[in-house]
Amino acid sequence: MQEVNEVMLKSAEAFKQYRKVSGKQKATFLRAIAEEIEALGMDLIRTAMQETNLPEGRLVGERGRTTFQLKTFADLLEEGSWVEARIDTADLHRQPIPKVDLRKMLVPIGTVAVFGASNFPFAYSTAGGDTASALAAGCPVVVKGHPAHARTSAMVAEAILKAAQRTGMPDGVFAHLDSGDGFEVGKALVMHPETKAVGFTGSFTGGKALFDMANQRKEPIPVFSEMGSINPVVLMPEKLSQDAENVALIYANSITLGVGQFCTNPGLIIGIEGESLEKFIDVLSEEIEKVTPSTMLNAGIYKNYEGKKTITLAQDHVITEAISKVEKTAEIQGTATIASVKADTFLKNPTLNQEVFGPFSLIVKCQDITQLTEVLEHLEGQLTATLMATESELGANPEVVDTLRNISGRLNFNNVPTGVEVCFAMQHGGPFPASTDGRFTSVGPDAIKRFVRPASYQSFPDSLLPDELKQSNPLNIWRMVDNVFVK
Amino acid sequence: MQEVNEVMLKSAEAFKQYRKVSGKQKATFLRAIAEEIEALGMDLIRTAMQETNLPEGRLVGERGRTTFQLKTFADLLEEGSWVEARIDTADLHRQPIPKVDLRKMLVPIGTVAVFGASNFPFAYSTAGGDTASALAAGCPVVVKGHPAHARTSAMVAEAILKAAQRTGMPDGVFAHLDSGDGFEVGKALVMHPETKAVGFTGSFTGGKALFDMANQRKEPIPVFSEMGSINPVVLMPEKLSQDAENVALIYANSITLGVGQFCTNPGLIIGIEGESLEKFIDVLSEEIEKVTPSTMLNAGIYKNYEGKKTITLAQDHVITEAISKVEKTAEIQGTATIASVKADTFLKNPTLNQEVFGPFSLIVKCQDITQLTEVLEHLEGQLTATLMATESELGANPEVVDTLRNISGRLNFNNVPTGVEVCFAMQHGGPFPASTDGRFTSVGPDAIKRFVRPASYQSFPDSLLPDELKQSNPLNIWRMVDNVFVK
Repeated sequence: MQEVNEVMLKSAEAFKQYRKVSGKQKATFLRAIAEEIEALGMDLIRTAMQETNLPEGRLVGERGRTTFQLKTFADLLEEGSWVEARIDTADLHRQPIPKVDLRKMLVPIGTVAVFGASNFPFAYSTAGGDTASALAAGCPVVVKGHPAHARTSAMVAEAILKAAQRTGMPDGVFAHLDSGDGFEVGKALVMHPETKAVGFTGSFTGGKALFDMANQRKEPIPVFSEMGSINPVVLMPEKLSQDAENVALIYANSITLGVGQFCTNPGLIIGIEGESLEKFIDVLSEEIEKVTPSTMLNAGIYKNYEGKKTITLAQDHVITEAISKVEKTAEIQGTATIASVKADTFLKNPTLNQEVFGPFSLIVKCQDITQLTEVLEHLEGQLTATLMATESELGANPEVVDTLRNISGRLNFNNVPTGVEVCFAMQHGGPFPASTDGRFTSVGPDAIKRFVRPASYQSFPDSLLPDELKQSNPLNIWRMVDNVFVK
Repeated sequence: MQEVNEVMLKSAEAFKQYRKVSGKQKATFLRAIAEEIEALGMDLIRTAMQETNLPEGRLVGERGRTTFQLKTFADLLEEGSWVEARIDTADLHRQPIPKVDLRKMLVPIGTVAVFGASNFPFAYSTAGGDTASALAAGCPVVVKGHPAHARTSAMVAEAILKAAQRTGMPDGVFAHLDSGDGFEVGKALVMHPETKAVGFTGSFTGGKALFDMANQRKEPIPVFSEMGSINPVVLMPEKLSQDAENVALIYANSITLGVGQFCTNPGLIIGIEGESLEKFIDVLSEEIEKVTPSTMLNAGIYKNYEGKKTITLAQDHVITEAISKVEKTAEIQGTATIASVKADTFLKNPTLNQEVFGPFSLIVKCQDITQLTEVLEHLEGQLTATLMATESELGANPEVVDTLRNISGRLNFNNVPTGVEVCFAMQHGGPFPASTDGRFTSVGPDAIKRFVRPASYQSFPDSLLPDELKQSNPLNIWRMVDNVFVK
């Protein structure tokens, strides 16, 4: 892995310069990346369409999301308060010993290795959230291009390099490794001593393998693997009795949106047996039968979908409720499918807890609210959890709300989990196994926190402190000074 | 490990209640713990004196630090802004799709297992920083009592349990395991599925073993091991030419303070060969020879000190500069010692990078500032790094400042690293191997961040949101609302 070593050493040299680049300069760099990506125009969109089978509208939207993310981090850097400056001024008269002057802020940790996602060739790939947040933090980035969209990745990488050059960033601040060698390149990247963190979006198997490798290094490093989840949706009885049909229509759409290829796809629906749940299943089944199969990202994803779906449907006591009746027009089109199972069976069979990545959902039928709560307590960590309920039954069942909150990163009310807003209040990342580290988000400005650590300066001369910590607050940022938030 | 299992299941039950306890109630609990510890009076101090060989004054001071920490977290909870509330309000008119209402705050992660330190029987043990910050976060705590101060630990545990009962906290919010079985109990505690994080202060071997165990669990959990460091001190030439004698006096004291049994003890002093450095060594040697040997914490610590010191002194080209000439009056007293070595040798021999826990320091002699920078780049992660320099040479050598900042948690100017202030701006925790996770501090209010994760609420009815996220801001805390910090 000569190439990886060369890239990493250059990156380490770049870090020495890049960690000293001001927030405003980094913001210029990020905005330039957005511009260079936009400048690629329809060439980029067409290349991505060829490589991913995703439709034009979706890709144009995703490109917009990607440039929005870059601009969001640029805004964050220009505002500047994200460094969490804390200042405790000296008190020479304190008894029994004088108090020293201490000032702390967040600083970058070093080169970040990024592994993009197959299902988001822009927003979670080469110039996606991991890259944008790492560069914003002051960390150089090395991306391993995703083999499923290698040309798209290379084009975006060129745009980043152009932006770096144009804005005078240090040579080596960004590098792109061809995906050729696959596993070996990835391993060499994670194991290289100059790699200080890893960002990954993809399967549990892939994400967990990187996590394990990183922890076996002489110097373990943090790995932020976002590994997907089954995103449970709880159908509360009063809500369903009022609105079963509408809820079914909304979910037919959410389950099959983008051929179900979202990590927030609702893969598990939990309700209480009865007339309303049957009505919900009937309407949902009708809708699912009408869904036109669409081409999935690639043959591997399709094969995986069909394989996992077949295993789930073959489990004892699992009932196939509906399969799309619309004929396929191409080999790797995913067919929308829903199934159901009783809670007793679900609780006993761990296979039913596993993600089937694609347009599939499993409905779990509980006897009563007690069994429903038992099912919720039995679930593993999730990116999202959703409650379809009336306000009164939400208030009357605090343990349901509390249990779902405890297992998920984002708790959703009368809505669908698909659709991940890029904003401060977004938490995209849940307790394990949804992510390897549910204490961080991979979406929104707070994603920058993954690639920094606090550093204190004790009794330092004011003129030699970083601007963020100087007494006069030249950057005019929010800071905690002697226990009080001030600007 | 029947006992561990029972304790953990009870703790998991307690978490269901405790995570809903308000900040103000948790603050009452923490203040009650401080009161109950103070109520133990001199009985506690005497017990700790017997178990640790630490002098009364030091232990009274440390008890004060411990209750101060508890009260600091109580203040943090009462003020309330620590939850990092972020609110993004809905925008129904946004194009192309409406924006949902999203609100995020930090929530507790579950039961924390705490392993106390031998060198701080109060402040880093049973009711120390790890316990205080975990309880403040809303996490139940299970402490494995340190065998070196088992009775002290049991007394403090009683005080915590009394406080929990008195303030109506859920049964199981705190538990104390006797240290009897040592390793097996610790392992069972870390491996139990209901344990969600680990706090540890002690040796590299111990801390790394817990980290490795935790990462081999089915559900890996974060381990915050603070494993000590050699705390490099850089003597810049101009400073030394002006002030060699005074610097030597200050460091003779810092090296031998508390028989050198601090994780911030200056174990490595780096200077440039010449007259001033020789003068520094001469004065320091004179002082070291006059230091009265004191009893170390226990026979294990003493044996370890003598063993590691002997290994270091036996390395090729290491020169023993001074050993205390004051006679020992007891077997396990640590004798203050300093040695020196040329940078060439230091750079080649990794043994010289290892901590000798006790009143020992190694002086590294560099040819020039270039070699000094090379030595600094060669160092592993550190809790602290110190610069003894004039302001002008600090300004003239930005790469020295930057390199030290990059390897340490706290960068210190013209001061000693011993002395760790409990305040917001403190960073106690450095890049690996100083800590297993240098992205967090174990001292100061920010230590609470180790035991929480962000959780979002999407489109939730206001009345059912936690108070921290309600539109009217009933707790009057600082929040980020639509990208702006407001109260």
